[in-house]
This record gives sequence, structure tokens and C-alpha cells, in this order.
Amino acid sequence: MTPLSAGTGPGASRLSVAVLGATGAVGQTFVRLLDRHPWFRIAEVAASERSAGRSYGDAVHWLEGTLPPQTAALEVLPCDPAAIRSRIVFSALDASAAADVEPLFAAAGAYVFSNAKSHRMEPDVPLVTAEVNASHLDILVAQRERRGWSGAIITNANCSAIGAILPLCALHRAFGLSRVFIFTMQAVSGAGYPGVASLDILGNVIPHIAGEEPKIEQELGKMLGRIVGDRIESATFGVSAHANRVPVEHGHTVCMSVGLENSASAGDCAQVLAEWTGDEAARGLPSSPERPIILDSRSDRPQPRRDIGAGNGMTVTVGRVRPDPLLDVRLVAVSHNTVRGAAGASLLNAELLAARGVFAS
Amino acid sequence: MTPLSAGTGPGASRLSVAVLGATGAVGQTFVRLLDRHPWFRIAEVAASERSAGRSYGDAVHWLEGTLPPQTAALEVLPCDPAAIRSRIVFSALDASAAADVEPLFAAAGAYVFSNAKSHRMEPDVPLVTAEVNASHLDILVAQRERRGWSGAIITNANCSAIGAILPLCALHRAFGLSRVFIFTMQAVSGAGYPGVASLDILGNVIPHIAGEEPKIEQELGKMLGRIVGDRIESATFGVSAHANRVPVEHGHTVCMSVGLENSASAGDCAQVLAEWTGDEAARGLPSSPERPIILDSRSDRPQPRRDIGAGNGMTVTVGRVRPDPLLDVRLVAVSHNTVRGAAGASLLNAELLAARGVFAS
Amino acid sequence: MTPLSAGTGPGASRLSVAVLGATGAVGQTFVRLLDRHPWFRIAEVAASERSAGRSYGDAVHWLEGTLPPQTAALEVLPCDPAAIRSRIVFSALDASAAADVEPLFAAAGAYVFSNAKSHRMEPDVPLVTAEVNASHLDILVAQRERRGWSGAIITNANCSAIGAILPLCALHRAFGLSRVFIFTMQAVSGAGYPGVASLDILGNVIPHIAGEEPKIEQELGKMLGRIVGDRIESATFGVSAHANRVPVEHGHTVCMSVGLENSASAGDCAQVLAEWTGDEAARGLPSSPERPIILDSRSDRPQPRRDIGAGNGMTVTVGRVRPDPLLDVRLVAVSHNTVRGAAGASLLNAELLAARGVFAS
Amino acid sequence: MTPLSAGTGPGASRLSVAVLGATGAVGQTFVRLLDRHPWFRIAEVAASERSAGRSYGDAVHWLEGTLPPQTAALEVLPCDPAAIRSRIVFSALDASAAADVEPLFAAAGAYVFSNAKSHRMEPDVPLVTAEVNASHLDILVAQRERRGWSGAIITNANCSAIGAILPLCALHRAFGLSRVFIFTMQAVSGAGYPGVASLDILGNVIPHIAGEEPKIEQELGKMLGRIVGDRIESATFGVSAHANRVPVEHGHTVCMSVGLENSASAGDCAQVLAEWTGDEAARGLPSSPERPIILDSRSDRPQPRRDIGAGNGMTVTVGRVRPDPLLDVRLVAVSHNTVRGAAGASLLNAELLAARGVFAS
Repeated sequence: MTPLSAGTGPGASRLSVAVLGATGAVGQTFVRLLDRHPWFRIAEVAASERSAGRSYGDAVHWLEGTLPPQTAALEVLPCDPAAIRSRIVFSALDASAAADVEPLFAAAGAYVFSNAKSHRMEPDVPLVTAEVNASHLDILVAQRERRGWSGAIITNANCSAIGAILPLCALHRAFGLSRVFIFTMQAVSGAGYPGVASLDILGNVIPHIAGEEPKIEQELGKMLGRIVGDRIESATFGVSAHANRVPVEHGHTVCMSVGLENSASAGDCAQVLAEWTGDEAARGLPSSPERPIILDSRSDRPQPRRDIGAGNGMTVTVGRVRPDPLLDVRLVAVSHNTVRGAAGASLLNAELLAARGVFAS
Repeated sequence: MTPLSAGTGPGASRLSVAVLGATGAVGQTFVRLLDRHPWFRIAEVAASERSAGRSYGDAVHWLEGTLPPQTAALEVLPCDPAAIRSRIVFSALDASAAADVEPLFAAAGAYVFSNAKSHRMEPDVPLVTAEVNASHLDILVAQRERRGWSGAIITNANCSAIGAILPLCALHRAFGLSRVFIFTMQAVSGAGYPGVASLDILGNVIPHIAGEEPKIEQELGKMLGRIVGDRIESATFGVSAHANRVPVEHGHTVCMSVGLENSASAGDCAQVLAEWTGDEAARGLPSSPERPIILDSRSDRPQPRRDIGAGNGMTVTVGRVRPDPLLDVRLVAVSHNTVRGAAGASLLNAELLAARGVFAS
Repeated sequence: MTPLSAGTGPGASRLSVAVLGATGAVGQTFVRLLDRHPWFRIAEVAASERSAGRSYGDAVHWLEGTLPPQTAALEVLPCDPAAIRSRIVFSALDASAAADVEPLFAAAGAYVFSNAKSHRMEPDVPLVTAEVNASHLDILVAQRERRGWSGAIITNANCSAIGAILPLCALHRAFGLSRVFIFTMQAVSGAGYPGVASLDILGNVIPHIAGEEPKIEQELGKMLGRIVGDRIESATFGVSAHANRVPVEHGHTVCMSVGLENSASAGDCAQVLAEWTGDEAARGLPSSPERPIILDSRSDRPQPRRDIGAGNGMTVTVGRVRPDPLLDVRLVAVSHNTVRGAAGASLLNAELLAARGVFAS
Repeated sequence: MTPLSAGTGPGASRLSVAVLGATGAVGQTFVRLLDRHPWFRIAEVAASERSAGRSYGDAVHWLEGTLPPQTAALEVLPCDPAAIRSRIVFSALDASAAADVEPLFAAAGAYVFSNAKSHRMEPDVPLVTAEVNASHLDILVAQRERRGWSGAIITNANCSAIGAILPLCALHRAFGLSRVFIFTMQAVSGAGYPGVASLDILGNVIPHIAGEEPKIEQELGKMLGRIVGDRIESATFGVSAHANRVPVEHGHTVCMSVGLENSASAGDCAQVLAEWTGDEAARGLPSSPERPIILDSRSDRPQPRRDIGAGNGMTVTVGRVRPDPLLDVRLVAVSHNTVRGAAGASLLNAELLAARGVFAS
């Protein structure tokens, strides 16, 4: 049975999945995106001890849109492999919990799709943005063997890094990256809920997000790296990141100044960005956007409030591609941080594995 | 009679000044800052034809605080040298008007302190931030001679460039700048009134401000340049600027990645910034802040809403001085865009000239 | 041919409509709502002289989502009956233009669905919210006869009045209204584009909207009135309105204290609101929401940012139904001001007439 | 020794005061307002166990302006009468802590100026807004006697109630209140820190503040009541309150529809409001504003962001005084919620007692 045929019929044959950390902001995004998913069906939700035992509808402070009624009725389970039966596990756990909990699930046979930073930089853990480095999933063989796991951990990158990596990958494949200055203006939803205090951010900018800059600087290189033996080696271009919080609900904006190995004009870069479709493996999946990148030529775009909906939140909108006085090219990218930058990216990774037939037995 | 003694007594001996473009956002800031100024007294306000003939209080949509009653009672004059008697003229005119009007005033004998971009890059027009390049005022001799003016034009830089130049000057004097990447997050008041539509900026970022990036890229070099013969030559370091509008009322935030000619650690840079006091000529004037730069070591500062009041709006607050992975040092600077970045900078320039005795006869 | 059958096929048989004032904020909402409408097809767009002759895509500063490509390609026509062929005309004109222009179209045979205040309170002009007073459309016979028009003018109410009238109608039908205190917190999109200056509204409240309070106070009574002979007579309950602008993009929030003729408990009122479905004539139309009112029992709802999407923007969400210490009941209602409160209301009115067969020949 | 003479000299003779709950938002406002106070000197700060033992500068997340260095150096004490020596105690404790802790201090001899709701409605506890009901402090004799306290508890009202009571008192003294509808739009700082999550309030309205409406409805009557024997009896006019949270940093806006016992025109009401100076006892104290009410006749005022600074945050700005279609008069009032509505009100109450000579040793 292929995953595609799993989508046939009234849903009975969809694959059961669990969401860990289901009551938080990213967990809720998983719940929204999985509602009426053709291949997957939320069978289980799990959260902290405080919520366990209550119905999901009671335990969650639902933030956006309508809570799907079937999920609302589910009992919240503890984040414990003994309590969860699904083999496909989406994790929206904080790094503090994810560090210990996710390996337990992987050891118990689950494929854990993690949004936490905890395992991202381990050399046998794939850090995957589907259109960029789907092939890094091949490292799972080594991961399972070395760790003796019947399951696995697959991570996706920091929300800002995902918004940047799609256009950077397009340029890297075409011209080779040498160095990148990245400056982010990040939405408050990136800090979860309750997250940023309104007294801190209303009419203000906070020019610091704890731990964010090193994540961006490390993760971009790993996603553009390659498998060497039983480990992923990062690409070697340099990155300098400045992370800022701005009073925006959803949508991260990144400005980038990019140096290339093979010099190219802004016009050439724009053309590459306009035409890029990403890895073939990532196309045509249920969560794949029609285009991973849209190039918007209007002088004042992209903008987070107006552009994060592109491709159902999975498309990165790029604009202002222009020459850089000190490097090769400058540009701006906007992405939906809780969809493209978190839950949607995990989901697409799970679809990649499903399309490979990993969950088929 | 020295300007300092001009401040003695009940104000009768203060120097008469005029404000052009007095009803706009920057014009209003001039009016606020000049209220109870010890050396200057607003004798005349001028604005567009639409307002001329009405009282200032009737013509202005006053934006902040209390409109000083004496100024409210003044009749709004046309922006015409024939109608204005003051020899000291503060101009908050838009570039479209400033290009033609300011030279007419200079020709008629006025010292015009301009906030418009129109004349900033002309080689015999000083572009002055008092603590940085007060000595550039010496070019006025050449300017007046060449142009046959009995007055002069003195400009101050773009609001973002002023916020950046103070810390950059400190680093330049100590280590020499080689290249600078600048990312701005600019307040809406920088666009004047009515300026940015709320439908465009509420909960949003606009990653573009028309004409702003070239201004920043050119003006920083000019302010750090030097007089060679009868012209100012710009310093030659490179600048790449990204300008963004964010939903903040007042206060521009700039993130910078800085390369130095003589490499220095972030610690050394921080020390230089903490100790910098700027050009001696700019100290002790009525609008001089106690310190042109304050270094704030808290991890999440500076922030526009909380830090623009430092030094009555004339101090730039700097923070997050840390190593840059690709260059030498990264940092963040916040400044009050309509005070330090506009009207206050002009006022300080006029005080520099007053202290030199230029208006003493 | 019934309007319903008009929707069959690839759109060729849909009725041609025109949008006046198509480049403004409400005009754009018409364009979005009419895209893929089953009965209507935008054949013509018209705007001020400044835009006329350009393509719609060039003339419009598009604010939200994606501009439908076919409409983008239309030439912008002048707002002149001689230039427009459609018999169904949606008007998003400002009151200043609508006062003169709309009657010209009606005289020339068009059914004009107007969002302007200009004609709302004329006794032979129906002021219709479809679920409330569809029967007021009967006055059109008198209107056409008296004015000698082959077309007609149909108006919808002020955006705040529409959000209030749906719950008020439910209570009026059940218990009779005696008096209502209404306090609004209105989104900036209600002021059009560019509308409210960001310097005025960021982090602020403006406790005044020009002309808004009298509109609310008059229009509610007219919508709950009845036809007497050749005129509509208003219902006679009293209304006191306080109108405020708040920094919200879309969505008007109204708090109401309601006195009833036949006293009822808050519980009774809540039940009436929960069950109300409105006039049968307004159900099952293309723009009809599944329910005109949703009652949300959560203590902190409704909220504009989270609830305006209900029923594709056509449902009013009501909450906090509780006893009033001085009258009978207090409650809060949130509605989408440019959809339910403007373009969507007009569209629903046109669908009402279409369902009556008015456009059938 | 009079309190006035206490202000003489370099501060050595100022009265020592303590602040309970000093690290919270209102606690910080006390610290700011007490810096350089002529009569009082912060000798002690106290907070929760978590902070006790650290320096105040380390324990506090300072929100606004500059932390006074002497206070920063103070050790944070526990909120325990055994640990605090000051007889004048300003309490910014939450109601949960205040209920038990404040009586302990009063029993131990301290005059506790409380911002919590815990004791406000007890009949022998004065609920004082200095300009309105300073004479209610006379109840302290009965309070101390009945409770056997050597100290006392003096409360001030809910932040919204204080903004409303000043104009309402003016009208009540002139015409008698019969009923009042109050609609509030409250700033986020009213919820303390971290308080309202930015994800909840950015670009949004929350039409509910837990417990707020009953507080407003009860406290207004008590402040306008009178002492009868050993208890304060509330005035008997009716109040209906709607409380809303809006995305404003500081400043509560209240709209009111007011019914009077002796009918008066809006013009008469405006004149009363313009001329009202409040209780003589509250004038000329260190925290007294020049005027407790300013009447602003501009059509779009008062506004929180622009008007909360009036009278150093102690003046209520009133505007839009106009006829009400259902009652007598409508108006809008804006006040600074953490100054006038909290810490400043307590301070003024303490100054009232000091001026009576209560602390004169």
C-alpha cells in the first residue's frame, strides 16, 4: 500500500499520528494543518503533566481559527512513549523537554519530526527543508544503526533559517554562496504562547532573541551540506546573523546581503529565484506549495502581514533583489514562521518519508 | 556680544530665528525644541501657501505635547525670503521645496539649517553632525565665495545616518572603518505627517523606504571625510544599507556589522564606544547631550520605545556590541529620529556657529 | 431564467456587474468577493478621473491577497452612466461623489447598491441588511415611480450599524427594543485608504469618527422600521452611540447595553441570539453565511483579529451576554467591517433582488 | 515638625517609606515617583520570596526610564512586617497577597496605602481619590479602634474607576448623578508585567478584563458616598460598566453616558468640568497636579498616547462633552493608569495624611 492510496476513501485508512506539545503555539499549528490531511490523521495528542488527562479542547487556549471538533474530544496524553501508539510523531516540544523525550520515542520505534533545536546539529540527525535537502534523509540508516533505534529523529530548522534557506539554496545551487549577512525581523508568534509580553513589544523593537543568531549561523550551512560517510558535513560559507523581534503577529522578514563564489548580477539572481522549484522529491506532496518561492517585483514587498498566506503558508515570498554595494546581491524574504518555519516544514518532511514508502507496512 | 551672553536676561536678547515648513512633523519638533531655548527665539514660522496667513495654532495639526502659546499666535508666513527677517533659518522643508527655496534664503543672507537631502551631497555644503565633523563648517567660506551668498546652507544627515554615524565615528577614529552593513528599522514619524498609512504598517513591516538606502550609503562617508581645498571629500569605506519601516512611533533602530582597518575585539570596541565624547566643539552647547553615546550592556537593549529619551532625545544608545563572524564587530544603535536625527541636529549645528560668534554682530 | 441557473456553466452566463470606486478599500473588497461569484461577473470597474483609462492593475494600490488577473486587466472607466453598460452596479463611492453620481446611474436604469451615507435616510430608499429587513426592498416600486427611474438605489448601513443590527434585530423580534447604548471600537480599514495616519493611531485610541455617531443612531431604527405607504418609517427605540477608532486592521467591536420592552433575562437573550437565523429570504444565497450570528460563550470573546473570518466574513460573532445593572442585557458583537459591514452586505442585497428574479430578463 | 518642613535640607529629614511588591509594574511606578520626592524617601523595598535577598537592581526587570541608583542598591526584603521598619508603606501587592499581608502591616503600626482590591469595599476602609473624598480619611479613627490597629489601611480605587471619578465627581457635586454607563478601553500596563500576551493583543481588542466591571460599578459609588457613624455608605446612583483591553501601552480611555438628577445641558457640564479644582485639601501637595481635570475642546481628543502626560500623569483629560440622546451628557476621559490610576493616587493619599500631621512623630 502506497501512502498515496492511503488517502483514498473516507479517511479510515489514513496513518495515525501523534502531536507532542500539542497545546502550545506550534502544536496548535500542527493540529490545524493536520485537520483533513489526506494521508495523516491525528490519533493522539500529548502535552505536559498539567494538561494530561483533560480533553484537548479543555486543555488548550486555542489561538486561531476553529478548533477541529474531533481533535477537541481527544484526551491529552502524557509525553511518554508508553502512552502513545502512533509511529509518526510530530514534536512541538520545547528544547528543554525535547532533548530527553524525543530520543525515547525514537528508541521505541517512532519517527519523530522535531521542531526543537536539541538534536539539529548532531551529525547523524538530518536537518531537512524538503525542497533543499530531502536527500539528507538517507542519513537515517546510519542514525538508526549507530543508536540502535527502531525509529528515528528528523529535525527541521529554526523558523528564521527556513525562511532564509529557500532563496539561499536557489542561489547556492546556481552560483555558490561565499558569505551571507542576515538580519531578521521576527513575529511574536515565534516565541510561542504567552511568549513576548505586550508591554515589551507594543510600538517597540527588541533587538535580541535568545540563542537565535547562532542557530541561524549554524543551520544554514548544515542544510546546504552533504552526507560524508555516516555524518552530514556542513557547507562552509560564512554567516552573520542579527535577530530582532518586531510587533508583528505572524511572519518573519529577513533581509540578506549575499556574497557569491561565482559572481552574478542581481538580474541573474532574480531569474534564478523566479524559476527555482526545489528538489523534485518535494513536489506534489500534500503540503507542497505550488512554488516554494514567489518573486514579487513590487518595490515595497514582501511584507509579513500581506504575504505569509502564499502557498497556504508554505511559500517564501522574495523581493527587492538588487545589487549589493559590498557583496553581490541584496534581497528580502518573508515566510510564515509557524507554518513554513515550523509545523508545515515537519509535515512536509513526514510526507517525504511517506512517499518513500517508509510507513507503508 | 557672545552667544552665551545672548541668553542672559528675560529672553529679549535672544536671537530671532525662523522655521520653514513649520507645520510638518519635523517643523513641529523645531517648535518644541526652540521653546525656552536660551539663545534662540522663534520670531517667524513659514509654511506652504495653504497655511500662510493663518495663525500657526490654527494651521497646525499639533502632534505631541503642548503647543507653546506664543508660537501658536504667530502668523504663518510664506516660505519666501522677502517675507522673513530672521538671519537664522531652520528648514524642515521637503526636498522638492528645499531644492529651490533654501538657496534663495542663503542668497538673501540667511544661514539655512536644512533637513532636506537636496544639498547634502554638494561638495561645498557641509553635512554636519556636531560631535563628528564640526570642523566641516569651515567649508562655508568657500561656499559663500563661490556662490556669492551673504548667507549659507548647512545640512544635517538623513535621520538613520545620524543614528549610525555617532558610533561609527567613534570606531573610525579608533580603528578605521573598512566596510559597514547597516540594517534599519525606522519609526513612522520619519515619514512625516500623515506619512505612512495605518493600513500599511499596523502589525506589519515594509522593507523599503524610497531613496533611503542611497542616502545612508553616501552620507556616512561624507561626514567622516575631510576638507580638501574648497570641497569636502568623502571617506572611502564601503556601506551597504537595508532600510525598513516598522510599527514604532518614534525611534530608529540600526543593526550594523562593521569591518575595521585595524582589527579590534568587540571588547575594545565597546570600551571606545563607552568612552567616546565626540568633538570638543560640540560639548556644553544648549542642545548637547551629556554624552552623545550611552552604552547599555543589557542583552535586550537598546529599544526605541524605551531609549529614545536619553539625553533629551540627543543621545544615541548603543548595545549588543559583540564579535561578528564575518567582520570585526556587530552592534545595535537606537536614536530619536525627529530630535537627534532631524531638528535637534540642526539646532546643535546652529549653536556651533553661534558659539563661533558667527551671529554676533 | 432564474439567477440560480445563471450560475451554471463556465461563467459565460453570469450577470455582468460594475464596481464604482473600485480602487478604494471597499472597492477592492467588492473585487475580491466577486471573484468566482456564481451569479455575478465583474465586467466593468470605474474610479476617479485620475485612474480612468489605466488598467485596474496599474491604477490600484492592492491591499490584501492576490488581485484577480482578469480584473487586473480591465480598463478603469469613469464613473459615468454613459460609460457603463452593466445594470447591476456596486458603489463604493465616497459620500461626496455618491450623492450626485448614484442617482444618475439609477435614472439610467442601473440597480445601484450603495455603501455611502448619501441616500440611506431618504424615506423611499431601502436601507437593507438582508437577514433583518429584506422586505424593505418592496419600497423600490415607490422609489422608481416617484423618481421616474428605470433603475433604483439600494443602500446598506454604516459598517458599525450592520455589526450591531443583527443581534439587535434578534432581540427586537423577541422582546422589543426600548433603548440601546452602543460603544464602538472600529478598525482602521473603516476609514478607507490611506485613511488613518499611523502617527495618529499606533498605540493609541481616537475617541471620535466624524459623522459616525449620528449614522448609527439613525440607521438602526430605520432598519427595524416598516413600510407605511410609500415610505419607510423608523422604529422608535432610542440609541446613544460612542464611536472610537482603535489600532486594529479589520473588524469592528461593539459593546451594547440594551433595554427591552418586554423584560428578559440574559439567559433568554442568549438563547434567542444562539438560535436566530434571520429572514428566510436571506438564507441559501451565495453570500449568505451558514449562520448570521454565532454565539461564543468564552469569557474573552469575541475579538476582532480572531473572529472576523467567521462565515467568510459574513457572520457576526456575539459574546459576553450578561445582565446589565441599569437595563436588561449587555453584550459584545464583532463583525468584519469591509465584508459584512460593506461590500458583502451590498452583494447579499443584490443576491436578494436576483433571487426575486429582478435581473432575470 | 510639619511635613512641609520635612522637605527642607538635603533629604536627610525626609520620611522613610517602604514599597511592597516593588518589582512589579505598579511597584516600579512607585519607585519612579518617589525618586526625589520632597517629603518621602524610599528606605525599603520588598517583594516575593523569589526576589528577597537580591539587590533591587538585580531583581527587577526595569520597564521604563532610568532606575534610580540608590534604590537599585537596596536589598529586596520579604513582605513581612518584622523585616520592614518604615511606618509609611506603599503596597503594590496583588490582591491574593494583599488580603493577608496588608492587615499584618497595619496591625504592626504601618500606614498602608494599598492598590489592591482586597480591602477597598470594607466599610471602615477609606477608598480615596484625594480631590474627591479626602474627608473619608476620617474613618481611620473608627478603623483603628475597631480593629485594634496602631496603623491603618488606606486604599485607592481601580485604575479605570479613578479616571472616571474625577469628572463624575465634578458633575455629581453640581447636578447629582442618577446613572452612568461606562465603557473602558484600557492599556496593557494595567495588567502588570508580563501581563497581557502580545499574541493576544497586537492588532486586537479583548472585550473582557477579569473582575474589572464589578469593581468599577461598586467603587464609584463608595467614593461619592459619605461617612455615617463608623462606616462609609455609598452614594446610590447606578453604574453599568463594559471593560475592554486595547493595544495601548499606557493610558485608560473611558467613554461615559451620564444621567443627572438635576438635568443640565452639555454646555453647563463642560463649564463645570473646566472649572473644577476638587477638594481644597488635595491642592498644593507635592503630587497634586495644577488641575485635576483639563477640558480639551478639540474634536478628536483626549487620546491616551498624547494626553496621559498632563499634570505629570496626575491630570485627567476630558473631552467630547456633548448631549446624550438618552440621558443628559456624554464625554470621554483619559488618564494615566499606573500614575493617576495607581501609584500616584496612593502617593497623593499619603501626602494628604502627612499634611494632616499624622506622621509628624
